[in-house]
Amino acid sequence: MSFQHVAIIGLGLLGGSIGLAVQKHLPGVTTTGYDRDADVRLRARERGLASHIADTPEQAVADADLVILCVPVGTMGAAAAAISGGLRPDAVVSDVGSSKAAITKALSEALPDHTIIPAHPVAGTENSGPDAGFATLFHQRWCIITPPTGADTHKLDRLVDFWESLGAMVETMDPEHHDRVLAVTSHIPHLIAYTIVGTASDLEEVTRSEVIKYSAGGFRDFTRIAASDPTMWRDVFLNNREAVLEMLDSFLTDLAHMRESIIASDGESMFDLFTRTRAIRRSIVALGQDDARPDFGRGDHQ
Amino acid sequence: MSFQHVAIIGLGLLGGSIGLAVQKHLPGVTTTGYDRDADVRLRARERGLASHIADTPEQAVADADLVILCVPVGTMGAAAAAISGGLRPDAVVSDVGSSKAAITKALSEALPDHTIIPAHPVAGTENSGPDAGFATLFHQRWCIITPPTGADTHKLDRLVDFWESLGAMVETMDPEHHDRVLAVTSHIPHLIAYTIVGTASDLEEVTRSEVIKYSAGGFRDFTRIAASDPTMWRDVFLNNREAVLEMLDSFLTDLAHMRESIIASDGESMFDLFTRTRAIRRSIVALGQDDARPDFGRGDHQ
Ligand SMILES: NC(=O)c1ccc[n+]([C@@H]2O[C@H](COP(=O)([O-])OP(=O)(O)OC[C@H]3O[C@@H](n4cnc5c(N)ncnc54)[C@H](OP(=O)(O)O)[C@@H]3O)[C@@H](O)[C@H]2O)c1
Ligand SMILES: NC(=O)c1ccc[n+]([C@@H]2O[C@H](COP(=O)([O-])OP(=O)(O)OC[C@H]3O[C@@H](n4cnc5c(N)ncnc54)[C@H](OP(=O)(O)O)[C@@H]3O)[C@@H](O)[C@H]2O)c1
Repeated sequence: MSFQHVAIIGLGLLGGSIGLAVQKHLPGVTTTGYDRDADVRLRARERGLASHIADTPEQAVADADLVILCVPVGTMGAAAAAISGGLRPDAVVSDVGSSKAAITKALSEALPDHTIIPAHPVAGTENSGPDAGFATLFHQRWCIITPPTGADTHKLDRLVDFWESLGAMVETMDPEHHDRVLAVTSHIPHLIAYTIVGTASDLEEVTRSEVIKYSAGGFRDFTRIAASDPTMWRDVFLNNREAVLEMLDSFLTDLAHMRESIIASDGESMFDLFTRTRAIRRSIVALGQDDARPDFGRGDHQ
Repeated sequence: MSFQHVAIIGLGLLGGSIGLAVQKHLPGVTTTGYDRDADVRLRARERGLASHIADTPEQAVADADLVILCVPVGTMGAAAAAISGGLRPDAVVSDVGSSKAAITKALSEALPDHTIIPAHPVAGTENSGPDAGFATLFHQRWCIITPPTGADTHKLDRLVDFWESLGAMVETMDPEHHDRVLAVTSHIPHLIAYTIVGTASDLEEVTRSEVIKYSAGGFRDFTRIAASDPTMWRDVFLNNREAVLEMLDSFLTDLAHMRESIIASDGESMFDLFTRTRAIRRSIVALGQDDARPDFGRGDHQ
């Protein structure tokens, strides 16, 4: 038996995409949505992000056998506490947060009597809010599930089926490993992008309008990442601190080596590194995790 | 009078794109191409990258009133020396190299009796070689011209017209300022991308296949940049050393602050920075320097 009633708390990019994807891929399943922002609820109704938009968190979850929390990482505990009064005893509570150890702890504390199975679909864009979601966001993307030890295997299987129905590929791992993997593949790239965009906008010798004008040489790719939601990313760094600092320090060590190579005019070691990094790109494209067209298939030259 | 005979030395991404763009936008102008690699010349003939592909550099430039060197930055001096025997005395020699002070020096030394007007179209993709070029590469892109003091204004005007004919917008500045601007908007972004992709592929706790699998969270954008040509980029870092180190040190200072904010759980200063960086993105999109669709308009979710 798969889930029949899915409640979605938080109707931004992730929540909206789940709502649209369920309606597209699982037409027999009902969806209920809730967001704390009344304007978001209004827009969610207009876009039909869920079959029903409730006005309180308790109402939203009343019938649900699966609840997915789609709020910023730092708000997960509060969002879980707000639904506790309305939850069915057999409901599975999951989420889509970008870090997992801190959220697992917060959810278990807020809902000690419920089945908690955290998850993280590795899919997103730089946009947020109720207009950002789309039904194909999870297609060909990985969803990492981090089941607590002793999690009900039957419920876990149903959650795996659910994500596969939305077009995702599922992998399970423990929350600490998830947090390390995502520190490298997502959190550090965002940290770096935010930082360099900040550096570039504060220079004395180069004006901000020059930076904007000549951004097509590489910088604009970083600005896309650095346009991501500030609340979401603040929460990620505050809640995945250890793994982020560990990976940041590896990166800083390598950047210091690169700096030495430039100072020493050591072209050979640069060439070696630049050749190795190409291979990784090829694997990512081969595995369907990126668009193979040059420049990501951007349309701005036409 | 605009240029009538354009010679292109080096038939990779830039040279090929210029050849195709001239044939598309300036049908009355003849193009001659040369590349030191015989296989590239063969492929250039097949794709029609220029109306005529010559087998020696001297032949390629014999009739040309404009010669554009489209070879890696470190090879500019040698490529200029190789055409010196065949050049018309009135020919303008230009280039497309990504750094300008070192190239200006190399070209002036190799061709002391000719008019040298260096240029840099700020347009590219991660691909290189004779199959990479396309006629619209320069559309809506800036081309920075760095005329030496006392450059013939008539010839300079013709070069400006030439680039505008290919769809570019032209700006002039001195080579040292160019090198600083591009260090920020292009060279440092590439340096960072190469470094983080290297870091990610050498970790102990996270495997390379995990990095590849879960790259959609941000990392894959860096791999696209880090798939750029190793020779080209080694030459850029070796030839724009001072400006690159200056900007790198600004970035390192800011990254150290960010690290402190994470350690101190200082969410407020993160939030402030992440909010500021969004504004820059909006300006870049508003000025037509990037595709406004989410995820650059990638097609890999479909
Ligand atoms: N964006 C990505 O690329 C991506 C990818 C994978 C996972 N994630 C994770 O997905 C989660 C949601 O991100 P998103 O991009 O969808 O964010 P979003 O577009 O900003 O949407 C979040 C929505 O949740 C609402 N909200 C906040 N606290 C709430 C609460 N206690 N109860 C009900 N609604 C609440 C927000 O309203 P307010 O505006 O009033 O706060 C907002 O409308 C985050 O945990 C993030 O880490 C994001
Ligand atoms: N790629 C970008 O995004 C971009 C953007 C703006 C400017 N640029 C600049 O444009 C220039 C060319 O870059 P590209 O991307 O077009 O490189 P590319 O695709 O690798 O093409 C360069 C071509 O020049 C050939 N070559 C090397 N030395 C030569 C010589 N002495 N005489 C004749 N041909 C020679 C190379 O042959 P071999 O393979 O035998 O070396 C290769 O076929 C570089 O200076 C770069 O900095 C690049």
